Amino acid sequence: MRIGVLGGGQLGRMLALAGHSLGLEFVFYDRDPLACAGSVGDLVVGEFDDEVRLTAFAKQVDLVTVEFENIPLAALRHVAQLVPVYPNPDAISTAQDRVVEKQLFKSLGIPTPEFHAVDSVHSLSEILNRYNKKFIVKSRRFGYDGKGQMPVDSSSSANDAWDSLGGVPLIAEQHIKFNREVSIIAARSHSGDLRFYPLIENVHEKGILKRSKVSLHDPLQSTAEDYVRRVLEKLDYVGVMAFEFFDCDGELIANEIAPRVHNSGHWTIEGASISQFENHLRAILNWPMGDTSVRALCTMYNIIGSQINVEQLLKIPDVHLHWYGKAPRPGRKLGHVTLWGSTVQNALAVEEIINKQHGSSSLDTVVHQKQIFV
Amino acid sequence: MRIGVLGGGQLGRMLALAGHSLGLEFVFYDRDPLACAGSVGDLVVGEFDDEVRLTAFAKQVDLVTVEFENIPLAALRHVAQLVPVYPNPDAISTAQDRVVEKQLFKSLGIPTPEFHAVDSVHSLSEILNRYNKKFIVKSRRFGYDGKGQMPVDSSSSANDAWDSLGGVPLIAEQHIKFNREVSIIAARSHSGDLRFYPLIENVHEKGILKRSKVSLHDPLQSTAEDYVRRVLEKLDYVGVMAFEFFDCDGELIANEIAPRVHNSGHWTIEGASISQFENHLRAILNWPMGDTSVRALCTMYNIIGSQINVEQLLKIPDVHLHWYGKAPRPGRKLGHVTLWGSTVQNALAVEEIINKQHGSSSLDTVVHQKQIFV
Repeated sequence: MRIGVLGGGQLGRMLALAGHSLGLEFVFYDRDPLACAGSVGDLVVGEFDDEVRLTAFAKQVDLVTVEFENIPLAALRHVAQLVPVYPNPDAISTAQDRVVEKQLFKSLGIPTPEFHAVDSVHSLSEILNRYNKKFIVKSRRFGYDGKGQMPVDSSSSANDAWDSLGGVPLIAEQHIKFNREVSIIAARSHSGDLRFYPLIENVHEKGILKRSKVSLHDPLQSTAEDYVRRVLEKLDYVGVMAFEFFDCDGELIANEIAPRVHNSGHWTIEGASISQFENHLRAILNWPMGDTSVRALCTMYNIIGSQINVEQLLKIPDVHLHWYGKAPRPGRKLGHVTLWGSTVQNALAVEEIINKQHGSSSLDTVVHQKQIFV
Repeated sequence: MRIGVLGGGQLGRMLALAGHSLGLEFVFYDRDPLACAGSVGDLVVGEFDDEVRLTAFAKQVDLVTVEFENIPLAALRHVAQLVPVYPNPDAISTAQDRVVEKQLFKSLGIPTPEFHAVDSVHSLSEILNRYNKKFIVKSRRFGYDGKGQMPVDSSSSANDAWDSLGGVPLIAEQHIKFNREVSIIAARSHSGDLRFYPLIENVHEKGILKRSKVSLHDPLQSTAEDYVRRVLEKLDYVGVMAFEFFDCDGELIANEIAPRVHNSGHWTIEGASISQFENHLRAILNWPMGDTSVRALCTMYNIIGSQINVEQLLKIPDVHLHWYGKAPRPGRKLGHVTLWGSTVQNALAVEEIINKQHGSSSLDTVVHQKQIFV
């Protein structure tokens, strides 16, 4: 069975590492000939509006999934004419537009911050003046890792904000104070079978996820499951979805969904019975869904921007390194570390190494690729 | 860092699946263009006496290891002139010849069955007549999975035995009665750092490993560690080694060593802190050795010869499927299943499916390969 994956980043790479054990083969589609998933599967290099290339990709595989959400809807629909695509293109498309996404939350009775669509500098100015509140303005589409966001209030220049975000359609979301950022990873199969992993507490830095920690028996678990279930069923969704929330004094406020495996679920590789990667594959293949029980309280740390001292890291017991084979670049996710079981001593040791990133690692950045169709 | 692996079977495939997470890349060398490790790395196809091809392989990699032991010594030495080879060629060579191997055991004071080198039909006849015992005669070299073995005694025809084993040099090993077959997996780094996994109880059927089960706190653990340590240190061995023993009323009798990761250690992927595959890579890279603690009492079942009903299998909780992507063939290892934690109910369910192998699986046999240099 050959699985096509739109996108060839680390999420695709980890899907393939899980899938090879199930006897699956992978073909990735990415604009970048050095896409890091190319090491563990075939890679078709092309733009997402190149229908000839997309057709060639689709014809090599039995079904298609995505590993990042910002695939143009036209490309998804083109591929879906040739081969089944899971999750379905409309579901993916919903997650591409912050206004559409939040309208969905509202329609399903899921609390979400007050929001306003902003189509022009004029409408932004009007909103800032009328509401006299703090907002976060974000590009409606194609934002990730905190990119394309800025805080504004009535004293801000609507012109400056509009220009600095590139003059594209925006959403103004009310700025809210929260106690925690949490996420839930859920999977839904063709037959509607649902699986939920436990709530995860996430810490971001400069808009990028820095650390995720399992929160077992969290008092908000059942509410989170209820909310993600509503979205999955409404979208007739097949596969893994992540749902991010703010915990505001015990109330879950929906932030956003990601229609794919998610950084905050990487701990499941070692920490859960069946990982989010295997469960995504089982779901889209209509195989029996896997158990999401927790085997250990894990903490996941992202390695961002530059190398770390790998040999020092590997001296710490219960450390699992996941290196993505990407060239270092500021703000780029290069790998992650999962600490199995969270002893304070090991956690402190890992954090010290992660915070002391430097260039002296013995890990080369691998730019060699398997097979590239260009 | 690019690791070259001589041999491209499932052991190489699982080495690569562990190694990609560490940021490593893999190049395999195998005679078979469909070698199953080709899905997760580059594959150089060549005979083991093809020095041109071996040179081309060696020049692509930073260091070389083996995933099966029957690589001709000349090939190992040729590659070792170009790039470091771990374990060292002489150590691998020792494990290739049952007489040399058992002489080593004797010289290190490790109990092993009485044995005699058999160089001709005449010497076989002489041994059978002189000792009046039951022997197992085996080819001295290139045996695996019970191939090239037969039981004989003084009533047997030396001519028939000699002919049926192909007229090659043999070893006659005294037939012994044992209570259990056990093995230990150990790893040794460049600096001599040693790690031992717990003893494993193995059940064979028709000479092929069928089931392996962790035996925690086994009374023979420290003896097994002592014996494998003697061999590792004597051979100045770097990497993972498996040592198989017979347990004869509480006494360990050495059967054989395998200079590589081993089928009886597959449970370590899910059941140990750091798997045998990662620890082999850490050892040959001179990285810190990983913890071998047990996380769960696992049982591993081989899938041999024909497909199984995968969907039924995946319904059982705590089942981890490892499919190798090989074409079915009688007696061929096609995959394995690790049951995490050995609840009796799950174990019975797995055994029922494994024992009812048939052709109705939804798993295709994948014969597609990544990149083949021929």
